[in-house]
Amino acid sequence: MLSRIFRAAAAQMGPTQLTDSRAHTLGRMIGLLEAAAARGASLVVFPELAFTTFFPRWLLEGEALDHFYERAMPNAEVQPLFDRARTLGIGFYAGYAEMTAEGKRFNCSILVDTKGEIIGRYRKVHLPGSVEPRAGARYQQLEKRYFDYGDLGFPTFRASSQWRDAVVGMMICNDRRWPESWRVLGMQGVELVCVGYNSAAYDPNGGSTEDASLRTFHSRLVAQANAYMNATWAIAVAKAGDEDGSGLIGGSCIIDPNGVIVAEATTLADEVIVADIDLDLCRQGKDKMFNFAAHRRPEHYAVITERAGAIEPPLIDAATP
Amino acid sequence: MLSRIFRAAAAQMGPTQLTDSRAHTLGRMIGLLEAAAARGASLVVFPELAFTTFFPRWLLEGEALDHFYERAMPNAEVQPLFDRARTLGIGFYAGYAEMTAEGKRFNCSILVDTKGEIIGRYRKVHLPGSVEPRAGARYQQLEKRYFDYGDLGFPTFRASSQWRDAVVGMMICNDRRWPESWRVLGMQGVELVCVGYNSAAYDPNGGSTEDASLRTFHSRLVAQANAYMNATWAIAVAKAGDEDGSGLIGGSCIIDPNGVIVAEATTLADEVIVADIDLDLCRQGKDKMFNFAAHRRPEHYAVITERAGAIEPPLIDAATP
Repeated sequence: MLSRIFRAAAAQMGPTQLTDSRAHTLGRMIGLLEAAAARGASLVVFPELAFTTFFPRWLLEGEALDHFYERAMPNAEVQPLFDRARTLGIGFYAGYAEMTAEGKRFNCSILVDTKGEIIGRYRKVHLPGSVEPRAGARYQQLEKRYFDYGDLGFPTFRASSQWRDAVVGMMICNDRRWPESWRVLGMQGVELVCVGYNSAAYDPNGGSTEDASLRTFHSRLVAQANAYMNATWAIAVAKAGDEDGSGLIGGSCIIDPNGVIVAEATTLADEVIVADIDLDLCRQGKDKMFNFAAHRRPEHYAVITERAGAIEPPLIDAATP
Repeated sequence: MLSRIFRAAAAQMGPTQLTDSRAHTLGRMIGLLEAAAARGASLVVFPELAFTTFFPRWLLEGEALDHFYERAMPNAEVQPLFDRARTLGIGFYAGYAEMTAEGKRFNCSILVDTKGEIIGRYRKVHLPGSVEPRAGARYQQLEKRYFDYGDLGFPTFRASSQWRDAVVGMMICNDRRWPESWRVLGMQGVELVCVGYNSAAYDPNGGSTEDASLRTFHSRLVAQANAYMNATWAIAVAKAGDEDGSGLIGGSCIIDPNGVIVAEATTLADEVIVADIDLDLCRQGKDKMFNFAAHRRPEHYAVITERAGAIEPPLIDAATP
């Protein structure tokens, strides 16, 4: 039986400032792609909104906002990345802001095969933040204002003869904190989950909440546990460091189906990590402990799909006074 | 505003052998309950199948099997535990094998309040193992043979004036590896999840699978991540050590709503650990990052409840040859 091993990379990106030119950022991505290919990877995962800064932190309108969106993918500006990838025979995942012909806006990611063809698309389902800006705050989180909710669900993609026929799924940033995202992919037999993120390292407006260490712990914890519970590999990739005074965690990592981190970034800068993805390591979990057909009991899960919000139970009056 | 803090304990139990008398085991439990009360706890969590050995490892029938089940709860044999708890003003969670008047058998747990009244009952939904014994194997895992699937879902209980009105949920052992168990509780605003377990430390039949270290990592990982993703406290409690030649992991721990372990057992024996449960620490997650009503998108979760098993996507033929 053929082994099902291929090498994959995470291309963590350091910060991208508002004033950075698109050409400069794309040049960094091509450099990371070349580094991944030089290390033998046939797939490299870039972060969420990889071509630009994390612009939902700013209250913007008109062209100041619109220029962050891609009207087509690929397009003339990003074509050099596609060309270099095809030449090197390396596929990639990358996140970007999408504007459709109908004017819909999505926080989107694509899966590009080793021939430079887009074989999968995902639109972020779990948008964090708010529609209305926080009055008086220097930094915002306006994803709910700038994007429509993803309308593609959580599809999986299995590219014939590439990546050893791996079943690949995508999510974006906040999606990874929601076990439903992983489970919907798991229900399709996912073997590799790609997820790019931009996650705050602290409250940039100066509030006292979780510190960078706890937030990095959370980021890894959810990816590790959900990888294990769905018996899948996962590649989680940050845009990291200080973007115009707002800090982002790093912690990019490659996780095996046991939930064990097998490669991890050590900086908050551009950095490539690689690992050999042995898809057969998914079988132990999928066939035994997490044999869904044998062990899941969906008749008891109804509330998960019946409503969005939580409803608390009533108080029980003590049986004895 | 009143603070919502109370002290809770995990009562890890060392092994219980087939030949141990019920009175002996109950005496150990009363000792653990007294130790928890002496340290100020008003709730103590015992393991799964706390009154007996983990008998599904043996192929049994007739009275050799039936004597492990409780026909009533409480009953004369366990009444001393209830009496001591009421006297000390400490409630408890305990797992046991239940036989109903109709002859149904469940892997069950109860929640007993500080007045000694049973205020909640749960029957294990995710039964691992098999119906048929493994031929030639010394040790079995026959939960699917010895128990009916739980028929109560995942209820929560909120005892007026006890434990600061905490919303308490229960699960048993393997349930904790299934994010659906946690989410169904989370959809009810759960603030404290109690889970007892008996989890193998290795393959007792000599196969080469995960070692005790990896299995303990898994046990903690799923409890930590699901506590975080549902913004709840969790108390996970093992029956640990060598039961008649079959090893069980320890790793009992108390986990805060950040997924951080705040107390953990260090032995494979009878051991009490305690922590102050500040229910208000659930608010940060429940109101913000994990505000379900604001952020969940159940329209994309349908497959979670539509079927039990996984279905893989078709192969994509490469767009270019």
